Amino acid sequence: MKDLKLVMAKNHDIITPKTQIKIGNLTIGRDFLVIAGPCSVESEEQIMKAARSVKEAGANMLRGGTYKPRTSPYSFQGLGRIGLQYLSKAGLETGLPIITEVTDTRDVYLIGEYADVLQIGTRNMQNYSLLVEVGKIKKPVLLKRGMNATIEEWLNSAEYIMNAGNPDVILCERGIRTFETYTRNTLDLSAVAVVKGLSHLPVVVDPSHATGRADLIIPMSLSAVMANCDGLEIEVHPSPAEALSDKEQQLTPEQFKTLMSVVNKTLAFKEELNRYENTAL
Amino acid sequence: MKDLKLVMAKNHDIITPKTQIKIGNLTIGRDFLVIAGPCSVESEEQIMKAARSVKEAGANMLRGGTYKPRTSPYSFQGLGRIGLQYLSKAGLETGLPIITEVTDTRDVYLIGEYADVLQIGTRNMQNYSLLVEVGKIKKPVLLKRGMNATIEEWLNSAEYIMNAGNPDVILCERGIRTFETYTRNTLDLSAVAVVKGLSHLPVVVDPSHATGRADLIIPMSLSAVMANCDGLEIEVHPSPAEALSDKEQQLTPEQFKTLMSVVNKTLAFKEELNRYENTAL
Amino acid sequence: MKDLKLVMAKNHDIITPKTQIKIGNLTIGRDFLVIAGPCSVESEEQIMKAARSVKEAGANMLRGGTYKPRTSPYSFQGLGRIGLQYLSKAGLETGLPIITEVTDTRDVYLIGEYADVLQIGTRNMQNYSLLVEVGKIKKPVLLKRGMNATIEEWLNSAEYIMNAGNPDVILCERGIRTFETYTRNTLDLSAVAVVKGLSHLPVVVDPSHATGRADLIIPMSLSAVMANCDGLEIEVHPSPAEALSDKEQQLTPEQFKTLMSVVNKTLAFKEELNRYENTAL
Amino acid sequence: MKDLKLVMAKNHDIITPKTQIKIGNLTIGRDFLVIAGPCSVESEEQIMKAARSVKEAGANMLRGGTYKPRTSPYSFQGLGRIGLQYLSKAGLETGLPIITEVTDTRDVYLIGEYADVLQIGTRNMQNYSLLVEVGKIKKPVLLKRGMNATIEEWLNSAEYIMNAGNPDVILCERGIRTFETYTRNTLDLSAVAVVKGLSHLPVVVDPSHATGRADLIIPMSLSAVMANCDGLEIEVHPSPAEALSDKEQQLTPEQFKTLMSVVNKTLAFKEELNRYENTAL
Repeated sequence: MKDLKLVMAKNHDIITPKTQIKIGNLTIGRDFLVIAGPCSVESEEQIMKAARSVKEAGANMLRGGTYKPRTSPYSFQGLGRIGLQYLSKAGLETGLPIITEVTDTRDVYLIGEYADVLQIGTRNMQNYSLLVEVGKIKKPVLLKRGMNATIEEWLNSAEYIMNAGNPDVILCERGIRTFETYTRNTLDLSAVAVVKGLSHLPVVVDPSHATGRADLIIPMSLSAVMANCDGLEIEVHPSPAEALSDKEQQLTPEQFKTLMSVVNKTLAFKEELNRYENTAL
Repeated sequence: MKDLKLVMAKNHDIITPKTQIKIGNLTIGRDFLVIAGPCSVESEEQIMKAARSVKEAGANMLRGGTYKPRTSPYSFQGLGRIGLQYLSKAGLETGLPIITEVTDTRDVYLIGEYADVLQIGTRNMQNYSLLVEVGKIKKPVLLKRGMNATIEEWLNSAEYIMNAGNPDVILCERGIRTFETYTRNTLDLSAVAVVKGLSHLPVVVDPSHATGRADLIIPMSLSAVMANCDGLEIEVHPSPAEALSDKEQQLTPEQFKTLMSVVNKTLAFKEELNRYENTAL
Repeated sequence: MKDLKLVMAKNHDIITPKTQIKIGNLTIGRDFLVIAGPCSVESEEQIMKAARSVKEAGANMLRGGTYKPRTSPYSFQGLGRIGLQYLSKAGLETGLPIITEVTDTRDVYLIGEYADVLQIGTRNMQNYSLLVEVGKIKKPVLLKRGMNATIEEWLNSAEYIMNAGNPDVILCERGIRTFETYTRNTLDLSAVAVVKGLSHLPVVVDPSHATGRADLIIPMSLSAVMANCDGLEIEVHPSPAEALSDKEQQLTPEQFKTLMSVVNKTLAFKEELNRYENTAL
Repeated sequence: MKDLKLVMAKNHDIITPKTQIKIGNLTIGRDFLVIAGPCSVESEEQIMKAARSVKEAGANMLRGGTYKPRTSPYSFQGLGRIGLQYLSKAGLETGLPIITEVTDTRDVYLIGEYADVLQIGTRNMQNYSLLVEVGKIKKPVLLKRGMNATIEEWLNSAEYIMNAGNPDVILCERGIRTFETYTRNTLDLSAVAVVKGLSHLPVVVDPSHATGRADLIIPMSLSAVMANCDGLEIEVHPSPAEALSDKEQQLTPEQFKTLMSVVNKTLAFKEELNRYENTAL
């Protein structure tokens, strides 16, 4: 860990305060972040519907993929620039800041014009050119953990972004590849607790990609809250069965409303627990 | 999954009720099970101290290894039969049922004389002779998941025990091997939620072996509660720094008291949540 | 590696000579060992046919499972003691020493009465009671690498056997579990070269279980020879399509004859290469 | 595998002939390819020395990293454009075609001006923007397998390049991540045999990155030849102990000379074997 200077909470007796990132009224790292929205922006109507429903349920950031990295070149690749415009419009109308993935160094500035937060996906966690490029702009970056990356490799990737000049990094645990086949990947919640201890950066959890199954998202979200995360990223689609990607893991607006209700109650309970117990949870 | 007949919650429209296992006043599968105690029984005094402290804090079962499977033949191998007698005495004095690991088919009847529950360890999950042998006695069996096993392999091992005649199987998730090195293994909480959906058997979680780090045990225990587990297995030692095995992951009696307090509050909160929300959590 | 005393080629300036194990005319560790035969002994006729065909093709040891560890309790579990008698008879008739797996401490002496070599399977590599038990008899032991074991864990298991009194251990690489699905497991040939450098024990390679595919067995056998192994273990069945287990990976007698021919030529080539090149291959 | 149309040897009864790629006098897919050279271009003198030594020993392509993807932002990142000029000069002087890694879509055309073959590294195997970009130029591409990728994901990445217009793809197995720690990664030679059966594309093997150990490179190269590969990529440095990266795994010119000698003999032996045996090796 000798080379991790900027991401660590403590370096040679220097203690770095917890990172807080302001976007409008939202302060990430202080307010619990709930990013919600569809896997992909599929049409203006679809993203608008999704945006309204997640806003109403209480999300405070809107997601939607426009440049999609897919295993096969013949799978739906996203709407690109036009998708970006739909997403932007949906964000403006609902007052939600927006986040979308960037996969190419040449797109960083364009996407930075529209998005409030840039997402680096799991397959690009060690795309160092891209990390350096998003390190040069004035927008927060959400860095997903590589699906096979160790914590140390993940923190090194955050160090790349910060070393290039951008201190506003949000880490996101999204599951790691294991031999288990009942779930798409394996959600690593102890990594969340570990990273919260090592680093001053906020850590959010994406149970949608980690599990790949709508029925596991609520229990894993509540588990993630107890593991001390600073937020969640949840896939929500107006009609999951008709989605162009990730059908199995997107929640309906109704399910998301339930999730928000139980997450909020669990957050309130956890705050109370921290107040009464004289221990670091 | 075609060959899983006895462990599944539903088989050909036949729905099996949740398994409940009675040991004295304790009903596993209904009462939340908290197994606590040292990694190894090291002396009469040590196990007695440990037993009193975990009983006082609210544990309802006492653990202690007497036949220890260790990677190296030169590591401490446990006290064997004499350890079993100490453990038994500590159980009787505190009124706690006891659980200990069995590693050899030839020891099953002897250990069954002393122990209330027999534990099959992670390295023996596919030791089929041993599974069949514990399937023949009238004592409940706690079956740890192999550290590299899939859910399907784990359930097949439970099927072996049940097929040999013993219906009282408790499953225990104890972490799987991944590339991560900050934790000893990776606790797989989505597996808990998955297995609770598939099977009628109770599932407990062992955060001590999964994480290998005392500081992660409280957050992971609370996460496990929210993932719907039926109990916990926690390593507690009167003086962890002097332990003959697993120093880094054993809690002090004081830390365990805190754990019990926050776990109980979280269980109460979860019950309330289930009452008010019309959803399957 | 501090605890590895008996398996290492060099310990504190003491260099241990290469282990050689004599069974009749065969000297394992000097003569190239070719173990061949069916996955399971299925009938007297089947094992007799198999034995004759592998003997004729040039194998120098006969294999056949009689106590089979299977993932599901409902799969074919082997013929047990009667299978052992068939195997023994086939060995006597062809003059081939026989090897079969032992899975239970209680069976060690019985199986030791029949078999010339006892095999510890991949799922029992860390069944320490069994390792100690086979350490007490006067028969060589072939120790398969656990499908998820590191080299260090594997050598520690060999250390258990040797420490219990049995110096005649043969190591067998049989593939490790990875994310790849085209092959049953992944054959780790660099582990063979590594272990040959670390230890004085002979190392054989089992490409049948490693790949799970008949079409890969010849190329992987030749690769294994060039990686410096001391022998091969190959599944051969008189009629693979009718086998009760491991259909996909058993060779026909005809295919095995081809394998023996190309392996022998490759061994001769390698010997010549070692003679002419002044380098440690 | 439904979406793999261009990389497969056979699709709906259409059999695609083996891909052959001409670069000057060299025909990849027919002539055995030996790529050799240092991990990184460090200076004009170093790459010139390396080039002369590998040419003399019989390599037919020169490698050298100029844009280096490193886990930490503080590790040596390569000389960039000036390194490209040194590499190009060394190639011209020795008559060796050159290969170097491209990590950024914006560099594809620049690097394509200098290099004869573009390399996509293991961390960028699923950097789809980059795959599409190298799919648009008229230079062959060597695509390394992701260190955690399955064969299917690897072939899908090749499909991206071919679908974008570039048929000249060379696959390179360079080891996968496993739990083993004695080697840097685990060389997966059965994947080579599998892919040679599925696809018409040439497959080369990189034992330097796979093992991370100079002492394993010769045995693994010979094993790779017997597994049917079409070439090797070997790291060679004039003075490995002084290398700025990958010290442990680079061969000296002397060691490389030995490697070339035994590889050539093994290739000749294998050709003879194929001639006399009536079997598909």
